[in-house]
Amino acid sequence: MPTAKSTAEKPTPLRRTGSAVGSRRKAAPGSKHEDKLAAILRTAAQQFSTNGYEATSLDMIADQLGMHKATLYHYVDNKESILYQCLVRSFGDLDVVMRNMEDRSIPVLERLRLFVRSLAAAQNNDYGRCQVLVGSRPLDTQAGEEIQRFKRRLDQTVRNLITEGIADGSIRPCHPGLFSAMLFGALNWVPRWHQDNGKFSIQDVADSFMDMLVHGVAAPSRS
Amino acid sequence: MPTAKSTAEKPTPLRRTGSAVGSRRKAAPGSKHEDKLAAILRTAAQQFSTNGYEATSLDMIADQLGMHKATLYHYVDNKESILYQCLVRSFGDLDVVMRNMEDRSIPVLERLRLFVRSLAAAQNNDYGRCQVLVGSRPLDTQAGEEIQRFKRRLDQTVRNLITEGIADGSIRPCHPGLFSAMLFGALNWVPRWHQDNGKFSIQDVADSFMDMLVHGVAAPSRS
Repeated sequence: MPTAKSTAEKPTPLRRTGSAVGSRRKAAPGSKHEDKLAAILRTAAQQFSTNGYEATSLDMIADQLGMHKATLYHYVDNKESILYQCLVRSFGDLDVVMRNMEDRSIPVLERLRLFVRSLAAAQNNDYGRCQVLVGSRPLDTQAGEEIQRFKRRLDQTVRNLITEGIADGSIRPCHPGLFSAMLFGALNWVPRWHQDNGKFSIQDVADSFMDMLVHGVAAPSRS
Repeated sequence: MPTAKSTAEKPTPLRRTGSAVGSRRKAAPGSKHEDKLAAILRTAAQQFSTNGYEATSLDMIADQLGMHKATLYHYVDNKESILYQCLVRSFGDLDVVMRNMEDRSIPVLERLRLFVRSLAAAQNNDYGRCQVLVGSRPLDTQAGEEIQRFKRRLDQTVRNLITEGIADGSIRPCHPGLFSAMLFGALNWVPRWHQDNGKFSIQDVADSFMDMLVHGVAAPSRS
């Protein structure tokens, strides 16, 4: 966001299990506990996106899973902890993607395309839609700030790429913050209109946005 | 939106007073009644954007205006009617702007720039922020559909400009629906980050977005 303060953020990856708002126990990846937890979080993410966070109760999530509410509490502490874990999962492997953006052996516009594809993919699964449509507002200050800090790192990654591209001559002089604001606005809107069974895949959308942003829509002779 | 059905819409302008959800009386422009109604709607729009629609009561709006709730009812029927009127006002003079987009004596990219400037201005005043941040979801079906129809006409206007530009050779072949989705996403996000006292005016943002969309960010020799 162009008006946000863009200090260098210490890249602390978000915790996959455990959280500022509490998680009942740590789950080993691939375990039955983890599978069940994932099913709960995915169902919750879908319901939060469809009904809104406030209107979704733990009862509704348990009902949808054919599970007793008491069993649900074996996996999660409360609704806020579920949302926090959905938001953490929404970032998928973006932490790795951000690190890859520092690999200067790949041209900056190619790296930007990889970033846009990765972000579009992450934002349009169940967790991503929850992140874009519900966001971190219902979380307490500490957990909310953790999510916001990750989003500011995403923004800073785009700004850094643009700044690097201007410096190496591959990108026209432009304002990195405004480019980032435009890109995130365009991508954040996709979960609001994209349909999985529609005409365009998420990768089509990401590539099409990138082509328009990189080359512009004016015909070459007129631009 | 690219997946929305894009039938030609009959351009019925939204009613400035009176509404699908009821308005107590018609107000002559410039009258004291109209001034007071405008103050009520503006205050309501600000509160809806800040607190959310559900969390804002008529009492809160009356308090903010230093007005008895009974007096408020002299001007408006209910909260839903207030939201409807805020959304109608959010479109400002966009009806005229859409008609101007059909003036083929002006090059298509110039018309598009005028449209983007007008839309950005309309979306970032009190009513516009209310439209973007609250939307028409709380309205009943008929009123909500009226607002959605207007928004589909805005989308169709952009698609028509792109289609016209591709036909006359001023715009590269691209998908008009995806261009429109990207543009509306970018613009709809602005009220979420833009600060009136920040570094960029809304016109700066609109012009910068247009420059990037028209010319692309790749340096000419690399694009």
